[in-house]
Amino acid sequence: MTTVTTAQATAILDAAQKKAEDMGIKQNIAVVDAGANLLAFRRMDGAWLGSIDIAITKAKTARYFDMPTGDLGEMSQPGKSLYSIEHSNGGLISFPGGIPLEDGDTVIGAVGVSGSTVDDDHAVAQAGADALSS
Amino acid sequence: MTTVTTAQATAILDAAQKKAEDMGIKQNIAVVDAGANLLAFRRMDGAWLGSIDIAITKAKTARYFDMPTGDLGEMSQPGKSLYSIEHSNGGLISFPGGIPLEDGDTVIGAVGVSGSTVDDDHAVAQAGADALSS
Amino acid sequence: MTTVTTAQATAILDAAQKKAEDMGIKQNIAVVDAGANLLAFRRMDGAWLGSIDIAITKAKTARYFDMPTGDLGEMSQPGKSLYSIEHSNGGLISFPGGIPLEDGDTVIGAVGVSGSTVDDDHAVAQAGADALSS
Amino acid sequence: MTTVTTAQATAILDAAQKKAEDMGIKQNIAVVDAGANLLAFRRMDGAWLGSIDIAITKAKTARYFDMPTGDLGEMSQPGKSLYSIEHSNGGLISFPGGIPLEDGDTVIGAVGVSGSTVDDDHAVAQAGADALSS
Repeated sequence: MTTVTTAQATAILDAAQKKAEDMGIKQNIAVVDAGANLLAFRRMDGAWLGSIDIAITKAKTARYFDMPTGDLGEMSQPGKSLYSIEHSNGGLISFPGGIPLEDGDTVIGAVGVSGSTVDDDHAVAQAGADALSS
Repeated sequence: MTTVTTAQATAILDAAQKKAEDMGIKQNIAVVDAGANLLAFRRMDGAWLGSIDIAITKAKTARYFDMPTGDLGEMSQPGKSLYSIEHSNGGLISFPGGIPLEDGDTVIGAVGVSGSTVDDDHAVAQAGADALSS
Repeated sequence: MTTVTTAQATAILDAAQKKAEDMGIKQNIAVVDAGANLLAFRRMDGAWLGSIDIAITKAKTARYFDMPTGDLGEMSQPGKSLYSIEHSNGGLISFPGGIPLEDGDTVIGAVGVSGSTVDDDHAVAQAGADALSS
Repeated sequence: MTTVTTAQATAILDAAQKKAEDMGIKQNIAVVDAGANLLAFRRMDGAWLGSIDIAITKAKTARYFDMPTGDLGEMSQPGKSLYSIEHSNGGLISFPGGIPLEDGDTVIGAVGVSGSTVDDDHAVAQAGADALSS
């Protein structure tokens, strides 16, 4: 199983933190490996305590279904096909901020960010994911 | 990290209970510290048993995200940005009754109230929070 | 169902806290009612965070079986009749610090204390229980 | 309540990882803040997956009771005063590898390490804790 490494995960945290600092926001950042198991986590000083679990769960959710968490959320609204999927797996997060990490066509892990608006969270997660290919 | 003290928490419980008595309602009242850990709790005679967990979770939710629980609830409705956030952190409460406790610009804890209508709960929680600054 | 009242629970917390202060220790103190549901809780400044759950669980355990928690613990040691009972009820505490509250021959609740040695915890819980009859 | 910072937590992870590399072992390393909430985590490539939870729980346990986890374990053996305390707080870890982080006399967080023998885990956690004062 190809998976994101510890060194890559640390680089992802660093890149995401730098992006958050540039944006003037405080974030929780999590990286899971190809097995959806926690690999690295960092909470910036003063970031929301409730976002510890959300950042980790966003990363897990993104790897569970190999798609950005916001994409899943569009399918889990009332009346949609995956309504209430958040009840599974001990609780999922289905709003933006979780992004799969890819090596070519292979998903090798995921990054999850929480602590600001969902647009901010997604942007910071993307900055983290971009560090993988740089 | 500045945190609410035991003496302050007891004063908050007393003020909230007095407000509830004035309103003729029976409440569960909880205070958590800056680390979102339970600091003080009181259930008034005859108050709902199901509100023990809700009052404590409201207080935790308010500290987890440093905002009144009702504000979070507006963002967690179907179609809104934080839809289904209640599945995180082992269960959140996103209707009114939880209020952060502040020392200037610093959140030092939170109070949560449950046992009546959400408007009543919020009013009682506010009376508790006001005791901090008096 | 006769049960300890909110006013009595607050008096129990006050008496237990005073005893702890006299002993120079920091305690978590919990009172449950006749239904084993949380009625009142107080954590003294600087008391162990891990004792929040233990104090509450000691109080519940004492009411679940209508005996001091230390008595239960003697029966739950390896080779004894109630070995591993701590796995039940979502987790019990079977060392001293939980004491039933009695009105004559009727158990009307329980008090649980955690934060120091088990002998200290028991002494503080007893001081709380004594406040009921004074 | 003074708490360990994000920058300090990252330095602790770096120091612990270097120690583990010097010892030729693979570790999971976690840091919690003064409120016992997760602040930073790192799993070294190939480290045990089952140690993710153990490292985090060791750090929480060390902060919950402001002592090394191995000290707690000596008191939780059959026949000892805290027998079965592991059932509290949703599960504790009471063998070595968790160490409180101190600023003078104040506990400001804790570090937890899991992935090798308990002696190795403790040594790596100590190397992490030592980074705080260097």
